[in-house]
Amino acid sequence: MSYQIAVLAGDGIGPEVMAEARKVLAEVEARFNLDIEYSEYDVGGIAIDNHGCPLPDATLKGCEASDAILFGSVGGPKWEHLPPNEQPERGALLPLRGHFELFCNLRPAKLHTGLEHMSPLRADISSQGFDVLCVRELTGGIYFGKPKGRQGEGEEEEAFDTMRYSRREIRRIAKIAFEAARGRRGKVTSVDKANVLACSVLWREVVEEVAKDFPDVTLEHIYIDNATMQLLRRPFDFDVMLCSNLFGDILSDEIAMLTGSMGLLSSASMNGSGFGLYEPAGGSAPDIAGKGIANPIAQILSAALMLRHSLKQEDAAACIERAVGKALEAGFLTGELLTASERHKAKSTKEMGDFIANAI
Amino acid sequence: MSYQIAVLAGDGIGPEVMAEARKVLAEVEARFNLDIEYSEYDVGGIAIDNHGCPLPDATLKGCEASDAILFGSVGGPKWEHLPPNEQPERGALLPLRGHFELFCNLRPAKLHTGLEHMSPLRADISSQGFDVLCVRELTGGIYFGKPKGRQGEGEEEEAFDTMRYSRREIRRIAKIAFEAARGRRGKVTSVDKANVLACSVLWREVVEEVAKDFPDVTLEHIYIDNATMQLLRRPFDFDVMLCSNLFGDILSDEIAMLTGSMGLLSSASMNGSGFGLYEPAGGSAPDIAGKGIANPIAQILSAALMLRHSLKQEDAAACIERAVGKALEAGFLTGELLTASERHKAKSTKEMGDFIANAI
Ligand SMILES: CC(C)[C@H](C(=O)O)[C@@H](O)C(=O)O
Ligand SMILES: CC(C)[C@H](C(=O)O)[C@@H](O)C(=O)O
Repeated sequence: MSYQIAVLAGDGIGPEVMAEARKVLAEVEARFNLDIEYSEYDVGGIAIDNHGCPLPDATLKGCEASDAILFGSVGGPKWEHLPPNEQPERGALLPLRGHFELFCNLRPAKLHTGLEHMSPLRADISSQGFDVLCVRELTGGIYFGKPKGRQGEGEEEEAFDTMRYSRREIRRIAKIAFEAARGRRGKVTSVDKANVLACSVLWREVVEEVAKDFPDVTLEHIYIDNATMQLLRRPFDFDVMLCSNLFGDILSDEIAMLTGSMGLLSSASMNGSGFGLYEPAGGSAPDIAGKGIANPIAQILSAALMLRHSLKQEDAAACIERAVGKALEAGFLTGELLTASERHKAKSTKEMGDFIANAI
Repeated sequence: MSYQIAVLAGDGIGPEVMAEARKVLAEVEARFNLDIEYSEYDVGGIAIDNHGCPLPDATLKGCEASDAILFGSVGGPKWEHLPPNEQPERGALLPLRGHFELFCNLRPAKLHTGLEHMSPLRADISSQGFDVLCVRELTGGIYFGKPKGRQGEGEEEEAFDTMRYSRREIRRIAKIAFEAARGRRGKVTSVDKANVLACSVLWREVVEEVAKDFPDVTLEHIYIDNATMQLLRRPFDFDVMLCSNLFGDILSDEIAMLTGSMGLLSSASMNGSGFGLYEPAGGSAPDIAGKGIANPIAQILSAALMLRHSLKQEDAAACIERAVGKALEAGFLTGELLTASERHKAKSTKEMGDFIANAI
């Protein structure tokens, strides 16, 4: 099989962790006899520097000509003074999501055995582990709803945003959550604010309808404020969390932080025809960029998600995930996952990439 | 001085914790020579049962004739089948907030010395303690913004909500946050999603303007998703958190849960003329209602907030807070604050009320 991948490494640690993901992909291609061609494009801050905008036309065209986008990370202090619309994160990610209608964001977050001490949760809670898949709607809601803007004068000048969801939009993301739950522990927790939002009332209605087609999956509803709380006390009670765009933004970050190891988490943003953008869940970490100490695992796992969801190469995806598991089980870790007294055992970005590539 | 207070005890544990708050208030009245008259009104589920709606006219009229509302808690399984609009919480709280324009919600949350083990956070984080005041805008944003509703047919039927903020609304709540920070550790963290929401861009602009009048207060901005994360790692870095209605709903609950002792937290909802509604931050806890084991402290501290903010009786308020502090320092605790092995030392609702009343 032959595939075309657009590689958008971006800023900060993006390029260095991407190099390790490419190394691992090269091994996987050899082992599974895949023919993957990569084209690199500027995105984010580096694109602003080189072409004057965070998502240049050439980058967008390159993505259109590809089967998937392997994304690094964007942003950094250098571009923080720019108006929100032109900043690397918002100016690149939101248009990419909109343009390719990447309505479905999957963010798996698991507390790995042996890494419980990384979680900010109390030992008796984290020792029970957790494994949550956040399914976030990514092209609707208050992010893209119209009208959005300003009107009026003086102190009565006001800004407004519109949260908007159709049955169709809710149904397609809900289906994905239920299908995912089937392959997991069979539970969907739908997050809303149905005691306040009209969108949430419709959300609940449609989710209930979809649930009828999945009698083997348990459905519960929870308000977003309560979800934020319950995740702190009993994260292990959740399996798949189904969220609108804004609530998913907030909850998926909370869950990511609960693992305490953002460098291990990746994210898939997909549309209805198998095309997707795959990226680490963490940011561009400008403070450690160029030092060779960043954890490449999130980027490597993004490549696995890409193989699974866009290239339909489940075996290759699972092989990468097993190789990553081997590194973690062997205590082969980058510095941020080690306590101060163990820090001297820290592996570099490159050592980690080599270990995982060898384990393929 | 003579005052008129509307007492809305509500459902679940509401009436039993309210009885203890009244006991403490009686002591304070005697000691500080205050003349407070109380009128009791139905609200929430009990009002639905007795009068067919969660906020009867007589209750609203009674509140209008008062200097403040001392609120218990509302809701329970009995009324959960009702449509969202008619449920006790939403059907009583939102109209009260709207009717009296209670735009300012203060939710202080502190991890008390000796109660660090209650926090779901890791010991090395909780041992550093924290003390956060969440200042939440309570009558604007997506809760009340128009239009809100549904339109269209079939799968294209859609629901919509409007988030809306004027400069005036943002300025008045921002001022309160800065003033509060002055009396505390001098730091305001303004929470928004300025990389996505037009409302948040205006929010940032106005907060920056207000900050100019408070050169002694430090201002920082944080995105809501990042705030949710940073609170887990370093809650002690936050002093006053300034939030819009929806983000404040989510964050204040997260912070409350981080203390691990909702039974100690109270909340003040005020308008521009000193009128306010004072309530425990936790819910009606129907599972323990009537057992005499609920912690009355949150309700008692609500009375203290009422004395401070609506009755301007700072000395009386501080006196209640000191008395509560004495109970906690003495390890005089209700069951939910004790570990299983210490549970036999648990004090009842009434014992706790008596202890605090005696300490006045
Ligand atoms: C950069 C920002 C617009 C984005 C979002 O809010 O969706 C980010 O926080 C994310 O979660 O990918
Ligand atoms: C009951 C509900 C409408 C309310 C809110 O969201 O404001 C509650 O969660 C609160 O925080 O007081």
